[in-house]
Amino acid sequence: MAERMIVVGGDAAGMATAAQARRRRDRRDLEIVAFERGHFTSYSACGIPYWISGLVSDREQLVARDPATHRKQFDIDVRIRHEVTAIDLDRREVLARDLDGGGEVRERFDTLMYAAGAVPIKPDWAQTDMAGVFGVQTLDDGSALRQWLDAEPRPRRAVVAGGGYIGVEMAEALVLRGLSVTLLERNEQPMSTVDPDMARLVTEAMRGVGVDIRTGVRVTGLSERDGRVHGVETNSGHIPADLVVLGLGVRPNTALAEAAGLPLGPAGGIRVDRRMRVTGVPGVWAAGDCVETLHRVSGMPVHVPLGTHANKQGRVAGINIGGGYATFAGVIGTAVTKVCDLEVGRTGLRERDALAAGFEFVSVIAESTNRAGYYPGARPMTVKLIAERPSGRLLGAQIVGWSEAAKRIDTLAVALWNEMTVDDMTALDLGYAPPYAPVWDPVLVAARKTMAALGR
Amino acid sequence: MAERMIVVGGDAAGMATAAQARRRRDRRDLEIVAFERGHFTSYSACGIPYWISGLVSDREQLVARDPATHRKQFDIDVRIRHEVTAIDLDRREVLARDLDGGGEVRERFDTLMYAAGAVPIKPDWAQTDMAGVFGVQTLDDGSALRQWLDAEPRPRRAVVAGGGYIGVEMAEALVLRGLSVTLLERNEQPMSTVDPDMARLVTEAMRGVGVDIRTGVRVTGLSERDGRVHGVETNSGHIPADLVVLGLGVRPNTALAEAAGLPLGPAGGIRVDRRMRVTGVPGVWAAGDCVETLHRVSGMPVHVPLGTHANKQGRVAGINIGGGYATFAGVIGTAVTKVCDLEVGRTGLRERDALAAGFEFVSVIAESTNRAGYYPGARPMTVKLIAERPSGRLLGAQIVGWSEAAKRIDTLAVALWNEMTVDDMTALDLGYAPPYAPVWDPVLVAARKTMAALGR
Repeated sequence: MAERMIVVGGDAAGMATAAQARRRRDRRDLEIVAFERGHFTSYSACGIPYWISGLVSDREQLVARDPATHRKQFDIDVRIRHEVTAIDLDRREVLARDLDGGGEVRERFDTLMYAAGAVPIKPDWAQTDMAGVFGVQTLDDGSALRQWLDAEPRPRRAVVAGGGYIGVEMAEALVLRGLSVTLLERNEQPMSTVDPDMARLVTEAMRGVGVDIRTGVRVTGLSERDGRVHGVETNSGHIPADLVVLGLGVRPNTALAEAAGLPLGPAGGIRVDRRMRVTGVPGVWAAGDCVETLHRVSGMPVHVPLGTHANKQGRVAGINIGGGYATFAGVIGTAVTKVCDLEVGRTGLRERDALAAGFEFVSVIAESTNRAGYYPGARPMTVKLIAERPSGRLLGAQIVGWSEAAKRIDTLAVALWNEMTVDDMTALDLGYAPPYAPVWDPVLVAARKTMAALGR
Repeated sequence: MAERMIVVGGDAAGMATAAQARRRRDRRDLEIVAFERGHFTSYSACGIPYWISGLVSDREQLVARDPATHRKQFDIDVRIRHEVTAIDLDRREVLARDLDGGGEVRERFDTLMYAAGAVPIKPDWAQTDMAGVFGVQTLDDGSALRQWLDAEPRPRRAVVAGGGYIGVEMAEALVLRGLSVTLLERNEQPMSTVDPDMARLVTEAMRGVGVDIRTGVRVTGLSERDGRVHGVETNSGHIPADLVVLGLGVRPNTALAEAAGLPLGPAGGIRVDRRMRVTGVPGVWAAGDCVETLHRVSGMPVHVPLGTHANKQGRVAGINIGGGYATFAGVIGTAVTKVCDLEVGRTGLRERDALAAGFEFVSVIAESTNRAGYYPGARPMTVKLIAERPSGRLLGAQIVGWSEAAKRIDTLAVALWNEMTVDDMTALDLGYAPPYAPVWDPVLVAARKTMAALGR
């Protein structure tokens, strides 16, 4: 009889696991059943803001592989609209509810992949079914939001609560849709994924396209009229709104895992080993936005929900389940985003992270340009480096600029991954041609300036 | 009495040396005299094609620091239009001719920086003063070519001999100027700086904008009418031309150095140690396009004339001359170029280099896109990796694509610099967001495909 794997969650991590395992073991050897609560599998949640804005025209474009493809191409028994409601580790069974048919199924497993993703953080005021209030976590969330935008009465005034990646991307998307948008941020700056001195550049760009950014504002409640959201109550007054987007971040979706007794770590995610096995629970694996992982620079466990990690972790788990050997090496916190025409990249530790990890460091901001200064279209680029003192080891980097800025963070990410010092970095042989860089690339300019700040 | 440094050559390497040395030692301690044969100092030779095309409007934009600035800001006695004609190591003197005044000066030195750059390779047929035949090595070359383009009778038919970086960039520039352009290449493809399978993509793009590329063609002579170039003779017939650009590469400008007894290495450049001291010749330094340097991957000496190395080497030499300590770490052959709308990047060894260095390797070409496939403007990107067998160590990489392709080579360059294996590279935490990359970055896609080719 074939071994049987149940996958809980049919998005990136779960389906990457299933596909990789299938590549190594055929159906006679490994039967795979995947339960997905929503209507879609293997989609790009990161693409939702671009579908909302209209840049991406069809929802289907965001779906990398639909359930039919998984069934046909990988022989995976995908069951959408099935919500797993319990995991019984002793009996090696999961219980799932058919959200459309209403029935309940019980399925045996030998191997379990828990890939339930993340859920939006909802403070008390957001625990509501009020019409017009949306998370942007799943493609179903996105569909509901699109419908709201297109339905009468058309919403005109949007409030985005929270200024993280999703918040700023959604604020921009809604401006592009012609709405008047207010972004509420508790802290002194939105985009706290970079240090405040870099985030200020983002704030300016967003204000430039008309987003009304209000900082130091705490939401206290929502107001309603005729069953629809009508405004947001804050510590600094009422803000009218006929659409509210929750961009307060996400947390690992662990309810089911906790109930089953899977171990959580200090970052709130499921604890896994390097092969993506749930620590101490034989035959049970986890991957994606529900797990926590090692930050290679701080050495601490972190929760970094991001499609690229989910895919890598799923691949690692799938190779192992398939009988191969692979490990997930951890993360260094690299992320890029487009905010209006501005590009933002970050990797490693921010100042606050470096402090929390106990490092002594210098941080330096260097101004440069994306191209040779004389080449048409040259625009400013700001690079911030954080380096350990006195070793000079790179701890973190942030870039804000116009074209060709965001992905330059990869150069720094690979340097960081390899634990380079800024001294060594000044020697790096990076590409130079006038359309692409000054003769000293912005990355090298920043490394030199950091060396100087270290007194050498 | 102050120590005295003579700089031979007032471009990137020489003036970077002078400026760095000055930062650490003032005039009372170190007197600096710089001789430059041309009219300009510290200019971007790499920018000449963009000035020729008209993308850059003024020649002065290409000059980072003019002689007056060097004099005023760094207290450097810059003498333009002075050609050093002899170096006497025993008497510690140089002899220089004033190319305008006609006089000859003799100057004593304690320290000599030889930074005479490179000269265009000129086969017998190119050893000519025929009007309308140009190298593109110095800003004076560029000025002469611009004058030719603007003078009557206006040239209409250009032949570019040689399809290296300068050749392809000049071919494009002349097309932009409205000329009919033929590019002659001896080998099967121009852009031999990348492997032929990648160069083919460049050839197609250039043909797309109307460059008549003829491969397997060897120039045998030039024909003349009324003292002006009138055509190019080749092994496959006569090609009419009223403008000929030499793009046959450059060699280190070592005539003077050889006459003085400075040692040359196997790559034809001046031999220097890690601090940029000429090997075995006390008090004499060299940097820039006239030296050879270590290729960190092949372990062999190479001649890589490029502004970015010249600047780094000059900085290293200047720090050392200034009393500090710095070393030049060598190169890995990173280069980027824009050919029409196509972006080309390379780093490390090509297949032929890897063979010559004695490596066993696999090479893999992976097709991907610069953005998430559904994001507007997503375009193909082709990444080639060359990896040692069986270790998987990255030996070289090439990228051809549209926007955001060229500088992605830096990610691979830093991986190569750190001697990463493709196995390790698949774990790299690179930036992901739909406007900038698919969820598996093209670099990671290529690393995975290379792992597969290595049988794992």
